[in-house]
Amino acid sequence: MNGADRLARLEARVRELEDVEKIRERLSTYAFNADVGRVEEYLDGWTDDSVYDITEDTKLSGRAQLETLLTAPDGLHKKEIENRSQHIHVNLVIKVRGDRAWAEGYSLVPVVRDGAITILTTAYNHWEFARSGDEWLMTLRQRRTVGGPTWGGEVLKSYLT
Amino acid sequence: MNGADRLARLEARVRELEDVEKIRERLSTYAFNADVGRVEEYLDGWTDDSVYDITEDTKLSGRAQLETLLTAPDGLHKKEIENRSQHIHVNLVIKVRGDRAWAEGYSLVPVVRDGAITILTTAYNHWEFARSGDEWLMTLRQRRTVGGPTWGGEVLKSYLT
Amino acid sequence: MNGADRLARLEARVRELEDVEKIRERLSTYAFNADVGRVEEYLDGWTDDSVYDITEDTKLSGRAQLETLLTAPDGLHKKEIENRSQHIHVNLVIKVRGDRAWAEGYSLVPVVRDGAITILTTAYNHWEFARSGDEWLMTLRQRRTVGGPTWGGEVLKSYLT
Repeated sequence: MNGADRLARLEARVRELEDVEKIRERLSTYAFNADVGRVEEYLDGWTDDSVYDITEDTKLSGRAQLETLLTAPDGLHKKEIENRSQHIHVNLVIKVRGDRAWAEGYSLVPVVRDGAITILTTAYNHWEFARSGDEWLMTLRQRRTVGGPTWGGEVLKSYLT
Repeated sequence: MNGADRLARLEARVRELEDVEKIRERLSTYAFNADVGRVEEYLDGWTDDSVYDITEDTKLSGRAQLETLLTAPDGLHKKEIENRSQHIHVNLVIKVRGDRAWAEGYSLVPVVRDGAITILTTAYNHWEFARSGDEWLMTLRQRRTVGGPTWGGEVLKSYLT
Repeated sequence: MNGADRLARLEARVRELEDVEKIRERLSTYAFNADVGRVEEYLDGWTDDSVYDITEDTKLSGRAQLETLLTAPDGLHKKEIENRSQHIHVNLVIKVRGDRAWAEGYSLVPVVRDGAITILTTAYNHWEFARSGDEWLMTLRQRRTVGGPTWGGEVLKSYLT
């Protein structure tokens, strides 16, 4: 390659590294917003046609349903999670494919109850993202509980490709 | 942009990616030093005028107070933490601003007690750093317990900017 | 430096950042394969002459012994871990040295038992890797239990260099 081609190639590689960092940040700030109860900011992290496939029986779609998840007065989020939780995302594999991206990894949610810390849930996750200007929005989260009816390998499988 | 400008711009972007990695490492080695009891190395990770704002009631400043935190024979660190703990830092958002940087994210400390593993604390954190030669030193850690009197959004807020 | 030297230097720095990401991914996919029970994929993540130094008393070497670790019907893995676990790796420090690399950090394994989530183990780790084409394979994992007979500083020490 000549110098101009090498420079252009390098710019593309650096952009991809930056994109991976931005997606890692999106997963962090998505958690911050859920944990401290910033509902608008939480919703703004998803695209309008997003899907949150939480369990075998519960699949949310679009802004209104996601808002209810966080704001329902009798829901699990308001009763046991908000302001006493950490939505932790670890062991992330993140792959950028142009203006789309996916990530796979683990989630766990320690919560404080009566002064003691309990891990409320652990799950396997597959996320998808779309580029939107300078940032990345979530379009899909598929989540399955560890030890639940679905084999984790049904969720964690894009990393094999 | 011409080739020289593009090359200079790319050098700046790569340096920033390297800085983010270095700050991620600082948060890891800071934890290693605390957990295995390397006091000098722990202290060398902070600037001389650093502040560790641990709780609503406890704010440490400077090397001598930080040293006491780790070495007091009757303190929590010596009695329940050192050599039986992991100071885990996750969901990090790290932003470099020239020779300064900040990070926000979660901390949790599992400890081994009588053969069982208990999560001793979970907290929301805001950290600040200063460049010092080739590395980054911590200048501030503000930490608030999950489920405590301070709303997590008071700590986790720079990420909104 | 002239432009050609700067470009070559930058290519080397970007390659190193990419290598760090690949090693982070290796530690994630190694965990995925163990947790969901993909034995062949798990074994393919190690070199043929690899060593897994699990405890003071147990050191596995090579593909056959690693395979037994995951597949023995009466072993801990089949009985308490596979399909109910997360092999979490956090606080990673990763250093690339040409075609070799090492990492240090923490592991913890929450498992689901009778519907409750318990942290089964926490450990300090030192890993080594070898470049193999476009990817990185694990050649060594030294793991010591938190709170066990070995001081964590015997495992976590390359980060000091």
